[in-house]
Amino acid sequence: MSAKRDHIIEVASELVHIKGFNNTSVEDILHRSGLKKGNFYFYFKSKEELGFAVLEHQIEQFRRHCLSPILESDDTGFGKLVRILDALETEQSKTNCQGGCLFGNMALELSDVHEGFRKKLQQIFAGIVELFYRLLQEASPDLKEGVNLREVSQFIVAGIEGGIMLAKVHRNISPMRQCVRQLKNYLNALRRRGQTPIGIPNRPSERGMLQ
Amino acid sequence: MSAKRDHIIEVASELVHIKGFNNTSVEDILHRSGLKKGNFYFYFKSKEELGFAVLEHQIEQFRRHCLSPILESDDTGFGKLVRILDALETEQSKTNCQGGCLFGNMALELSDVHEGFRKKLQQIFAGIVELFYRLLQEASPDLKEGVNLREVSQFIVAGIEGGIMLAKVHRNISPMRQCVRQLKNYLNALRRRGQTPIGIPNRPSERGMLQ
Repeated sequence: MSAKRDHIIEVASELVHIKGFNNTSVEDILHRSGLKKGNFYFYFKSKEELGFAVLEHQIEQFRRHCLSPILESDDTGFGKLVRILDALETEQSKTNCQGGCLFGNMALELSDVHEGFRKKLQQIFAGIVELFYRLLQEASPDLKEGVNLREVSQFIVAGIEGGIMLAKVHRNISPMRQCVRQLKNYLNALRRRGQTPIGIPNRPSERGMLQ
Repeated sequence: MSAKRDHIIEVASELVHIKGFNNTSVEDILHRSGLKKGNFYFYFKSKEELGFAVLEHQIEQFRRHCLSPILESDDTGFGKLVRILDALETEQSKTNCQGGCLFGNMALELSDVHEGFRKKLQQIFAGIVELFYRLLQEASPDLKEGVNLREVSQFIVAGIEGGIMLAKVHRNISPMRQCVRQLKNYLNALRRRGQTPIGIPNRPSERGMLQ
């Protein structure tokens, strides 16, 4: 890995995150990175190849900064899941809800026009669903009988992506915060009676109706 | 309203739905519609103006074909809500999950690069949340105490949008179907005990765990 290559990927990630993939040109990336065209094509055959590198970079960032610290903790499966929801909310809050989720953006922009990106993004989303599934499996002794763990995992990803979308379009964290709170309510309602709710605020006004 | 103007809007809606707004050029629209550049600029000052017309067109389609038949029925508020979820799932299924939700696509593509579109889309999403809120209010005598109706309405929109996203990226209705089923489970769980679940299949394998 070279520093120049990494620099191009970082600059491209930022631009694509805000402007979209099709709307970001190689010229935009060169201009922002201060590099020459020759540098770009030395490292990447095409903008498309860079697009895949941007996705890999984003997965790596997500793993390193969001997932790993939580997954390596000694929290329970259920506790980890709730902490990931909180971390995602904090992340959107930090960026003032600009950009949103790069995976979600690229999924909606590219799924119907580029089969390679669609397949890569499908794989990424399936991987996140799989992670949530494993955490729910770990939590399953505390869950009610008959909970469809795969289906719930899919629903968590949908709720998060939809929440990020609403926060982005409102440029306000509030809609996402509400979605995360509702997801936590739902997850807590899947647990057997008598379990202490996890991740639910103590203030009654912010407490869910399913507790 | 002229037939030519309507034709341009319809062609543009289809193209933008699949390719995205920035990725659809005026030339693409002229080519597909068989009209001349002069025709286009007679009706629209710019592609931007057409973009707003496309959004209005889509709202009108959504109202006429999805919402009105359900809202004008004599079903209960809760029943109407569940039927809207089913109608949205059927809609995605019919198009083989291509295109997805035009509002969601444009929200993610344009919110950070065009303040006018962001505000318009914010208004559209707020309108849908408001509709769901009114249906939940109508259902409120049957709901548990303390349910935050606005928050739940926001969450329904997020769950649907996220479900449509996952169906689009997988090019398969299954993830959306799972999300709709989970949303219905959640909504049914918000009702007082003793209410007959609405919109939940009879087959035990497809029944939710909150029933």
